[in-house]
Amino acid sequence: MKAPSPLSRVAVVLVRTSHPGNIGAAARAMKTMGLDDLVLVAPRHFPHPDADALAAGAVDLLDRARVVPALRDALAECVLAVGFSARGRDLAHPAREWRALAPEALAATADGPVALVFGNETSGLSNDEILACQRHATIPANPEYPSLNLAAAVQVASYELALAAAAFAVPERPRRARATGADLEALHARLARMLVANGFLDPREPGRLDERMRRLAARLDLESEEVALLHGILDSFARK
Amino acid sequence: MKAPSPLSRVAVVLVRTSHPGNIGAAARAMKTMGLDDLVLVAPRHFPHPDADALAAGAVDLLDRARVVPALRDALAECVLAVGFSARGRDLAHPAREWRALAPEALAATADGPVALVFGNETSGLSNDEILACQRHATIPANPEYPSLNLAAAVQVASYELALAAAAFAVPERPRRARATGADLEALHARLARMLVANGFLDPREPGRLDERMRRLAARLDLESEEVALLHGILDSFARK
Repeated sequence: MKAPSPLSRVAVVLVRTSHPGNIGAAARAMKTMGLDDLVLVAPRHFPHPDADALAAGAVDLLDRARVVPALRDALAECVLAVGFSARGRDLAHPAREWRALAPEALAATADGPVALVFGNETSGLSNDEILACQRHATIPANPEYPSLNLAAAVQVASYELALAAAAFAVPERPRRARATGADLEALHARLARMLVANGFLDPREPGRLDERMRRLAARLDLESEEVALLHGILDSFARK
Repeated sequence: MKAPSPLSRVAVVLVRTSHPGNIGAAARAMKTMGLDDLVLVAPRHFPHPDADALAAGAVDLLDRARVVPALRDALAECVLAVGFSARGRDLAHPAREWRALAPEALAATADGPVALVFGNETSGLSNDEILACQRHATIPANPEYPSLNLAAAVQVASYELALAAAAFAVPERPRRARATGADLEALHARLARMLVANGFLDPREPGRLDERMRRLAARLDLESEEVALLHGILDSFARK
Protein backbone atom coordinates (compact mmCIF):
# COMPACT_ATOMS: atom_id res chain seq x y z
CA MET A 1 0.00 0.00 0.00
CA LYS A 2 1.33 3.39 -0.96
CA ALA A 3 2.01 5.71 1.98
CA PRO A 4 -0.28 8.76 1.89
CA SER A 5 1.48 11.88 0.62
CA PRO A 6 2.40 14.38 3.34
CA LEU A 7 0.49 16.90 1.20
CA SER A 8 -2.73 15.10 2.14
CA ARG A 9 -2.17 16.25 5.73
CA VAL A 10 -1.93 19.93 4.84
CA ALA A 11 -5.07 22.06 4.98
CA VAL A 12 -5.47 25.47 3.39
CA VAL A 13 -7.53 27.72 5.67
CA LEU A 14 -9.09 30.82 4.11
CA VAL A 15 -10.25 33.32 6.71
CA ARG A 16 -13.18 35.70 6.11
CA THR A 17 -12.86 35.55 2.33
CA SER A 18 -14.94 38.28 0.66
CA HIS A 19 -15.17 37.05 -2.94
CA PRO A 20 -16.40 33.51 -3.59
CA GLY A 21 -14.52 33.53 -6.92
CA ASN A 22 -11.29 33.67 -4.94
CA ILE A 23 -12.32 30.57 -2.99
CA GLY A 24 -12.83 28.70 -6.26
CA ALA A 25 -9.56 29.93 -7.75
CA ALA A 26 -7.74 28.96 -4.54
CA ALA A 27 -9.23 25.44 -4.73
CA ARG A 28 -7.98 25.13 -8.31
CA ALA A 29 -4.52 26.31 -7.26
CA MET A 30 -4.44 23.77 -4.41
CA LYS A 31 -5.46 20.86 -6.57
CA THR A 32 -2.82 21.58 -9.22
CA MET A 33 -0.25 21.11 -6.46
CA GLY A 34 -1.78 18.02 -4.86
CA LEU A 35 -3.48 19.67 -1.87
CA ASP A 36 -7.13 18.87 -1.28
CA ASP A 37 -8.20 19.90 2.21
CA LEU A 38 -9.91 23.30 2.13
CA VAL A 39 -11.28 24.96 5.27
CA LEU A 40 -13.29 28.18 5.13
CA VAL A 41 -13.58 30.39 8.19
CA ALA A 42 -16.69 32.58 8.04
CA PRO A 43 -16.70 33.13 4.26
CA ARG A 44 -18.95 36.00 3.17
CA HIS A 45 -20.62 33.91 0.43
CA PHE A 46 -20.30 30.13 0.18
CA PRO A 47 -21.35 28.03 -1.62
CA HIS A 48 -21.65 30.34 -4.62
CA PRO A 49 -21.73 29.92 -8.42
CA ASP A 50 -18.61 32.13 -8.79
CA ALA A 51 -16.67 29.73 -6.58
CA ASP A 52 -17.73 26.77 -8.72
CA ALA A 53 -16.92 28.61 -11.96
CA LEU A 54 -13.38 29.55 -10.92
CA ALA A 55 -12.64 26.17 -9.35
CA ALA A 56 -12.89 24.62 -12.84
CA GLY A 57 -11.82 20.98 -12.40
CA ALA A 58 -11.40 21.39 -8.64
CA VAL A 59 -15.07 21.62 -7.61
CA ASP A 60 -14.58 18.38 -5.67
CA LEU A 61 -12.48 20.38 -3.19
CA LEU A 62 -15.35 22.84 -2.74
CA ASP A 63 -17.81 19.99 -2.21
CA ARG A 64 -15.61 18.61 0.57
CA ALA A 65 -14.65 22.00 2.06
CA ARG A 66 -15.36 22.48 5.75
CA VAL A 67 -16.95 25.75 6.80
CA VAL A 68 -16.31 26.84 10.40
CA PRO A 69 -17.23 30.00 12.31
CA ALA A 70 -13.82 30.87 13.79
CA LEU A 71 -10.12 30.28 13.12
CA ARG A 72 -9.72 28.37 16.39
CA ASP A 73 -12.19 25.76 15.08
CA ALA A 74 -10.10 25.32 11.93
CA LEU A 75 -6.90 24.87 13.93
CA ALA A 76 -8.21 22.69 16.77
CA GLU A 77 -6.73 19.45 15.39
CA CYS A 78 -3.61 20.94 13.80
CA VAL A 79 -0.12 20.47 15.19
CA LEU A 80 1.26 23.43 13.26
CA ALA A 81 -0.43 26.48 11.79
CA VAL A 82 1.43 28.83 9.45
CA GLY A 83 -0.10 32.29 9.02
CA PHE A 84 0.71 34.06 5.75
CA SER A 85 1.02 37.80 5.55
CA ALA A 86 2.54 40.40 3.29
CA ARG A 87 6.01 41.49 4.17
CA GLY A 88 6.79 44.38 6.44
CA ARG A 89 4.12 44.06 9.08
CA ASP A 90 5.37 44.61 12.56
CA LEU A 91 4.17 41.50 14.31
CA ALA A 92 4.98 39.49 17.37
CA HIS A 93 6.06 36.52 15.27
CA PRO A 94 8.98 37.31 13.02
CA ALA A 95 8.05 36.53 9.42
CA ARG A 96 10.13 33.97 7.60
CA GLU A 97 10.41 33.40 3.90
CA TRP A 98 8.01 30.61 2.99
CA ARG A 99 10.63 28.79 0.91
CA ALA A 100 12.80 28.44 4.02
CA LEU A 101 9.90 27.43 6.25
CA ALA A 102 8.12 24.99 3.93
CA PRO A 103 10.34 21.98 4.74
CA GLU A 104 9.59 22.41 8.44
CA ALA A 105 5.85 22.56 7.76
CA LEU A 106 6.13 19.46 5.62
CA ALA A 107 8.08 17.60 8.31
CA ALA A 108 5.43 18.49 10.89
CA THR A 109 2.85 16.46 8.93
CA ALA A 110 4.52 13.40 10.46
CA ASP A 111 3.07 14.55 13.80
CA GLY A 112 -0.38 15.58 12.64
CA PRO A 113 -2.36 17.93 10.39
CA VAL A 114 -0.74 21.20 9.34
CA ALA A 115 -2.62 24.36 8.30
CA LEU A 116 -1.64 27.15 5.92
CA VAL A 117 -3.74 30.17 6.90
CA PHE A 118 -4.63 33.06 4.56
CA GLY A 119 -6.52 36.19 5.56
CA ASN A 120 -9.15 38.36 3.98
CA GLU A 121 -8.37 39.85 0.55
CA THR A 122 -8.26 43.43 1.79
CA SER A 123 -7.20 43.28 5.40
CA GLY A 124 -5.19 40.05 5.56
CA LEU A 125 -4.97 38.23 8.87
CA SER A 126 -5.64 40.18 12.05
CA ASN A 127 -3.00 40.23 14.77
CA ASP A 128 -5.13 37.83 16.84
CA GLU A 129 -5.32 35.46 13.89
CA ILE A 130 -1.56 35.64 13.31
CA LEU A 131 -1.02 34.94 17.01
CA ALA A 132 -3.21 31.84 16.77
CA CYS A 133 -0.59 30.44 14.37
CA GLN A 134 2.77 29.08 15.55
CA ARG A 135 4.63 30.31 12.47
CA HIS A 136 4.43 33.42 10.33
CA ALA A 137 5.36 33.11 6.66
CA THR A 138 5.78 35.64 3.92
CA ILE A 139 6.09 35.35 0.17
CA PRO A 140 8.82 37.72 -1.05
CA ALA A 141 7.29 40.35 -3.31
CA ASN A 142 7.88 43.73 -4.89
CA PRO A 143 7.72 46.22 -2.00
CA GLU A 144 6.18 48.76 -4.38
CA TYR A 145 3.32 46.39 -5.19
CA PRO A 146 3.26 43.34 -2.95
CA SER A 147 -0.44 42.55 -3.42
CA LEU A 148 -0.67 39.03 -4.70
CA ASN A 149 -4.21 37.97 -5.41
CA LEU A 150 -5.43 35.52 -2.73
CA ALA A 151 -5.50 32.55 -5.12
CA ALA A 152 -2.05 33.54 -6.44
CA ALA A 153 -0.67 33.44 -2.89
CA VAL A 154 -2.27 30.02 -2.38
CA GLN A 155 -0.77 28.90 -5.70
CA VAL A 156 2.77 29.95 -4.73
CA ALA A 157 2.44 28.51 -1.20
CA SER A 158 1.14 25.17 -2.49
CA TYR A 159 3.79 25.06 -5.21
CA GLU A 160 6.59 25.54 -2.69
CA LEU A 161 5.19 22.77 -0.54
CA ALA A 162 4.84 20.38 -3.49
CA LEU A 163 8.44 21.09 -4.47
CA ALA A 164 9.64 20.65 -0.89
CA ALA A 165 7.87 17.27 -0.95
CA ALA A 166 9.35 16.49 -4.39
CA ALA A 167 5.80 15.38 -5.09
CA PHE A 168 5.82 15.84 -8.86
CA ALA A 169 9.50 16.12 -9.64
CA VAL A 170 10.47 16.31 -13.28
CA PRO A 171 13.64 14.39 -14.18
CA GLU A 172 16.23 17.16 -14.36
CA ARG A 173 17.94 15.77 -17.47
CA PRO A 174 15.97 13.47 -19.74
CA ARG A 175 18.13 10.62 -21.04
CA ARG A 176 19.72 11.40 -24.34
CA ALA A 177 21.71 9.31 -26.77
CA ARG A 178 24.79 11.51 -26.72
CA ALA A 179 27.44 11.47 -29.38
CA THR A 180 30.82 10.08 -28.29
CA GLY A 181 34.26 11.65 -28.60
CA ALA A 182 34.97 9.46 -31.64
CA ASP A 183 31.72 10.64 -33.31
CA LEU A 184 32.76 14.25 -32.81
CA GLU A 185 36.36 13.77 -33.99
CA ALA A 186 35.12 12.05 -37.15
CA LEU A 187 32.73 14.92 -37.83
CA HIS A 188 35.39 17.61 -37.27
CA ALA A 189 37.91 15.76 -39.46
CA ARG A 190 35.42 15.30 -42.26
CA LEU A 191 34.30 18.92 -42.23
CA ALA A 192 37.94 20.06 -42.29
CA ARG A 193 38.74 17.79 -45.25
CA MET A 194 35.75 19.12 -47.19
CA LEU A 195 36.61 22.74 -46.44
CA VAL A 196 40.18 22.19 -47.55
CA ALA A 197 38.90 20.50 -50.73
CA ASN A 198 36.55 23.36 -51.58
CA GLY A 199 39.16 26.01 -50.80
CA PHE A 200 37.42 27.61 -47.78
CA LEU A 201 40.23 26.42 -45.49
CA ASP A 202 43.92 26.83 -46.31
CA PRO A 203 45.72 23.96 -44.52
CA ARG A 204 48.94 26.02 -44.38
CA GLU A 205 47.13 28.86 -42.57
CA PRO A 206 44.18 27.24 -40.80
CA GLY A 207 43.73 30.15 -38.38
CA ARG A 208 41.28 29.50 -35.54
CA LEU A 209 38.63 27.72 -37.55
CA ASP A 210 39.06 24.36 -35.84
CA GLU A 211 38.98 26.01 -32.43
CA ARG A 212 35.82 27.95 -33.26
CA MET A 213 34.01 24.92 -34.69
CA ARG A 214 34.94 22.86 -31.65
CA ARG A 215 33.69 25.57 -29.33
CA LEU A 216 30.40 25.63 -31.23
CA ALA A 217 30.08 21.84 -31.26
CA ALA A 218 30.83 21.66 -27.54
CA ARG A 219 27.87 23.91 -26.83
CA LEU A 220 25.63 21.69 -28.97
CA ASP A 221 25.99 18.56 -26.84
CA LEU A 222 25.18 16.63 -29.99
CA GLU A 223 23.14 13.46 -29.96
CA SER A 224 24.33 10.54 -32.06
CA GLU A 225 21.30 10.87 -34.39
CA GLU A 226 22.17 14.52 -34.89
CA VAL A 227 25.73 13.55 -35.85
CA ALA A 228 24.24 11.20 -38.45
CA LEU A 229 22.03 14.04 -39.71
CA LEU A 230 25.02 16.37 -40.04
CA HIS A 231 26.96 13.69 -41.94
CA GLY A 232 23.96 13.41 -44.27
CA ILE A 233 24.02 17.17 -44.86
CA LEU A 234 27.77 17.04 -45.55
CA ASP A 235 27.15 14.14 -47.97
CA SER A 236 24.63 16.29 -49.83
CA PHE A 237 27.20 19.07 -50.25
CA ALA A 238 29.91 16.57 -51.30
CA ARG A 239 27.61 15.19 -54.04
CA LYS A 240 27.04 18.62 -55.50
CA MET B 1 23.43 55.12 -9.98
CA LYS B 2 21.74 51.85 -9.16
CA ALA B 3 22.22 49.09 -11.74
CA PRO B 4 18.92 48.13 -13.35
CA SER B 5 17.51 44.87 -11.99
CA PRO B 6 17.95 41.87 -14.31
CA LEU B 7 14.18 41.45 -13.91
CA SER B 8 13.71 44.61 -15.98
CA ARG B 9 15.17 42.71 -18.96
CA VAL B 10 12.66 39.87 -18.77
CA ALA B 11 9.48 40.06 -20.84
CA VAL B 12 6.40 37.94 -20.33
CA VAL B 13 4.90 37.00 -23.69
CA LEU B 14 1.28 35.80 -23.73
CA VAL B 15 0.35 34.06 -26.97
CA ARG B 16 -3.20 34.08 -28.37
CA THR B 17 -4.79 34.70 -24.97
CA SER B 18 -8.56 34.12 -25.09
CA HIS B 19 -9.77 35.87 -21.95
CA PRO B 20 -8.73 39.49 -21.34
CA GLY B 21 -9.24 38.97 -17.61
CA ASN B 22 -6.31 36.57 -17.68
CA ILE B 23 -4.14 39.24 -19.29
CA GLY B 24 -4.95 41.60 -16.43
CA ALA B 25 -4.38 38.96 -13.76
CA ALA B 26 -1.06 38.03 -15.39
CA ALA B 27 0.02 41.70 -15.32
CA ARG B 28 -0.81 41.85 -11.62
CA ALA B 29 1.18 38.66 -10.99
CA MET B 30 4.17 40.07 -12.89
CA LYS B 31 4.19 43.36 -11.03
CA THR B 32 4.10 41.70 -7.62
CA MET B 33 7.36 40.01 -8.59
CA GLY B 34 9.06 43.03 -10.12
CA LEU B 35 8.49 42.23 -13.81
CA ASP B 36 6.99 44.94 -15.99
CA ASP B 37 7.44 44.13 -19.67
CA LEU B 38 4.29 42.51 -21.07
CA VAL B 39 4.00 41.47 -24.73
CA LEU B 40 0.75 40.18 -26.21
CA VAL B 41 0.77 38.07 -29.33
CA ALA B 42 -2.57 38.25 -31.18
CA PRO B 43 -4.78 38.52 -28.08
CA ARG B 44 -8.46 37.84 -28.81
CA HIS B 45 -9.62 40.97 -26.93
CA PHE B 46 -7.29 43.76 -25.85
CA PRO B 47 -7.59 46.39 -24.49
CA HIS B 48 -10.64 45.30 -22.53
CA PRO B 49 -12.35 46.37 -19.28
CA ASP B 50 -11.89 42.86 -17.81
CA ALA B 51 -8.13 43.15 -18.27
CA ASP B 52 -8.11 46.49 -16.44
CA ALA B 53 -10.31 45.17 -13.64
CA LEU B 54 -8.15 42.13 -12.92
CA ALA B 55 -4.87 44.02 -13.25
CA ALA B 56 -5.84 46.01 -10.12
CA GLY B 57 -2.77 48.12 -9.30
CA ALA B 58 -0.87 46.88 -12.35
CA VAL B 59 -2.80 48.70 -15.10
CA ASP B 60 0.41 50.58 -15.90
CA LEU B 61 1.79 47.31 -17.33
CA LEU B 62 -1.27 47.03 -19.58
CA ASP B 63 -0.83 50.64 -20.74
CA ARG B 64 2.74 49.87 -21.75
CA ALA B 65 2.07 46.39 -23.15
CA ARG B 66 3.18 45.76 -26.72
CA VAL B 67 0.75 43.96 -29.02
CA VAL B 68 2.30 42.07 -31.93
CA PRO B 69 0.79 39.80 -34.59
CA ALA B 70 3.14 36.81 -34.31
CA LEU B 71 5.46 35.18 -31.79
CA ARG B 72 8.48 35.83 -33.99
CA ASP B 73 7.86 39.56 -33.64
CA ALA B 74 7.86 39.25 -29.87
CA LEU B 75 11.13 37.31 -29.86
CA ALA B 76 13.03 39.27 -32.51
CA GLU B 77 15.21 41.18 -30.00
CA CYS B 78 15.48 38.43 -27.38
CA VAL B 79 18.66 36.46 -26.73
CA LEU B 80 16.78 33.68 -24.93
CA ALA B 81 13.14 32.58 -25.08
CA VAL B 82 11.73 30.07 -22.62
CA GLY B 83 8.48 28.36 -23.65
CA PHE B 84 6.29 27.10 -20.81
CA SER B 85 4.13 24.04 -21.17
CA ALA B 86 2.43 21.53 -18.97
CA ARG B 87 4.43 18.45 -18.19
CA GLY B 88 4.30 15.29 -20.22
CA ARG B 89 4.13 16.64 -23.75
CA ASP B 90 6.33 14.82 -26.20
CA LEU B 91 8.32 17.63 -27.70
CA ALA B 92 11.57 18.13 -29.49
CA HIS B 93 12.96 20.22 -26.65
CA PRO B 94 13.17 18.24 -23.42
CA ALA B 95 11.25 20.10 -20.72
CA ARG B 96 13.18 21.17 -17.65
CA GLU B 97 11.84 22.16 -14.27
CA TRP B 98 11.57 25.92 -14.19
CA ARG B 99 13.26 26.16 -10.79
CA ALA B 100 16.38 24.55 -12.28
CA LEU B 101 16.28 26.69 -15.42
CA ALA B 102 15.47 30.07 -13.89
CA PRO B 103 19.07 30.94 -12.91
CA GLU B 104 20.19 30.38 -16.51
CA ALA B 105 17.42 32.62 -17.82
CA LEU B 106 18.38 35.27 -15.31
CA ALA B 107 22.06 35.06 -16.26
CA ALA B 108 21.16 35.47 -19.94
CA THR B 109 19.78 38.95 -19.19
CA ALA B 110 23.42 40.06 -19.10
CA ASP B 111 23.49 39.42 -22.87
CA GLY B 112 20.13 40.89 -23.80
CA PRO B 113 16.37 40.66 -23.32
CA VAL B 114 14.89 37.34 -22.21
CA ALA B 115 11.30 36.19 -22.85
CA LEU B 116 9.05 33.87 -20.86
CA VAL B 117 6.41 32.59 -23.28
CA PHE B 118 2.97 31.29 -22.29
CA GLY B 119 0.40 29.81 -24.66
CA ASN B 120 -3.34 29.97 -25.03
CA GLU B 121 -5.46 28.97 -22.01
CA THR B 122 -6.92 25.90 -23.68
CA SER B 123 -4.35 24.71 -26.17
CA GLY B 124 -1.07 26.00 -24.70
CA LEU B 125 1.81 26.68 -27.06
CA SER B 126 1.81 24.97 -30.45
CA ASN B 127 4.79 22.85 -31.43
CA ASP B 128 5.94 25.61 -33.80
CA GLU B 129 5.76 28.12 -30.97
CA ILE B 130 7.71 25.84 -28.63
CA LEU B 131 10.33 25.37 -31.36
CA ALA B 132 10.70 29.14 -31.69
CA CYS B 133 11.97 29.11 -28.09
CA GLN B 134 15.47 27.96 -27.14
CA ARG B 135 14.36 26.44 -23.83
CA HIS B 136 11.30 24.53 -22.71
CA ALA B 137 10.23 24.88 -19.08
CA THR B 138 7.62 23.15 -17.02
CA ILE B 139 6.12 23.89 -13.63
CA PRO B 140 5.81 20.64 -11.68
CA ALA B 141 2.13 19.91 -11.01
CA ASN B 142 -0.31 17.22 -10.01
CA PRO B 143 -0.47 14.84 -12.99
CA GLU B 144 -4.14 14.22 -12.21
CA TYR B 145 -4.92 17.93 -12.52
CA PRO B 146 -1.99 19.95 -13.89
CA SER B 147 -4.09 22.86 -15.19
CA LEU B 148 -2.76 25.97 -13.57
CA ASN B 149 -4.69 29.05 -14.55
CA LEU B 150 -2.65 31.21 -16.98
CA ALA B 151 -2.11 33.99 -14.44
CA ALA B 152 -1.21 31.41 -11.79
CA ALA B 153 1.50 30.01 -14.07
CA VAL B 154 2.80 33.54 -14.69
CA GLN B 155 2.76 34.12 -10.91
CA VAL B 156 4.82 31.01 -10.17
CA ALA B 157 7.24 31.66 -13.04
CA SER B 158 7.79 35.29 -11.99
CA TYR B 159 8.15 34.30 -8.34
CA GLU B 160 10.87 31.78 -9.17
CA LEU B 161 12.73 34.38 -11.18
CA ALA B 162 12.46 36.99 -8.42
CA LEU B 163 13.81 34.47 -5.92
CA ALA B 164 16.61 33.44 -8.27
CA ALA B 165 17.49 37.15 -8.48
CA ALA B 166 17.17 37.48 -4.69
CA ALA B 167 15.27 40.60 -5.65
CA PHE B 168 13.11 40.92 -2.55
CA ALA B 169 14.86 38.65 -0.08
CA VAL B 170 13.54 38.61 3.46
CA PRO B 171 16.21 38.37 6.17
CA GLU B 172 16.08 34.71 7.11
CA ARG B 173 16.42 35.34 10.84
CA PRO B 174 15.46 38.72 12.22
CA ARG B 175 17.86 39.90 14.91
CA ARG B 176 16.73 38.99 18.37
CA ALA B 177 17.99 39.89 21.81
CA ARG B 178 18.61 36.32 22.93
CA ALA B 179 18.94 35.27 26.52
CA THR B 180 22.41 34.12 27.57
CA GLY B 181 23.42 30.90 29.28
CA ALA B 182 23.68 32.76 32.60
CA ASP B 183 20.14 34.11 32.17
CA LEU B 184 18.84 30.58 31.60
CA GLU B 185 20.76 29.03 34.52
CA ALA B 186 19.45 31.71 36.88
CA LEU B 187 15.90 31.04 35.72
CA HIS B 188 16.20 27.25 36.10
CA ALA B 189 17.77 27.59 39.56
CA ARG B 190 15.12 29.97 40.76
CA LEU B 191 12.24 27.83 39.52
CA ALA B 192 13.77 24.76 41.19
CA ARG B 193 14.16 26.62 44.51
CA MET B 194 10.52 27.75 44.41
CA LEU B 195 9.25 24.27 43.54
CA VAL B 196 11.22 22.78 46.42
CA ALA B 197 9.85 25.46 48.74
CA ASN B 198 6.24 24.82 47.75
CA GLY B 199 6.64 21.04 47.92
CA PHE B 200 6.13 20.25 44.19
CA LEU B 201 9.74 19.04 43.92
CA ASP B 202 11.37 16.68 46.40
CA PRO B 203 15.10 17.46 46.33
CA ARG B 204 15.92 13.91 47.44
CA GLU B 205 14.00 12.44 44.47
CA PRO B 206 14.05 15.13 41.79
CA GLY B 207 13.25 12.68 38.98
CA ARG B 208 13.58 14.11 35.49
CA LEU B 209 11.97 17.48 36.15
CA ASP B 210 15.14 19.51 35.54
CA GLU B 211 15.82 17.65 32.30
CA ARG B 212 12.29 18.18 31.04
CA MET B 213 12.27 21.88 31.91
CA ARG B 214 15.63 22.37 30.19
CA ARG B 215 14.38 20.57 27.09
CA LEU B 216 11.36 22.84 27.03
CA ALA B 217 13.43 25.98 27.58
CA ALA B 218 15.87 24.96 24.85
CA ARG B 219 13.04 24.86 22.32
CA LEU B 220 11.90 28.32 23.41
CA ASP B 221 15.07 30.14 22.36
CA LEU B 222 14.13 32.73 24.97
CA GLU B 223 14.80 36.41 24.49
CA SER B 224 16.24 38.37 27.40
CA GLU B 225 12.99 40.37 27.77
CA GLU B 226 11.08 37.10 27.97
CA VAL B 227 13.39 35.92 30.77
CA ALA B 228 12.58 39.13 32.63
CA LEU B 229 8.86 38.49 32.07
CA LEU B 230 9.14 34.95 33.44
CA HIS B 231 11.00 36.26 36.50
CA GLY B 232 8.15 38.70 36.98
CA ILE B 233 5.64 35.86 36.86
CA LEU B 234 7.69 33.83 39.34
CA ASP B 235 7.82 36.94 41.59
CA SER B 236 4.04 37.14 41.49
CA PHE B 237 3.74 33.52 42.65
CA ALA B 238 6.39 34.03 45.36
CA ARG B 239 4.43 37.01 46.76
CA LYS B 240 1.25 34.99 47.06
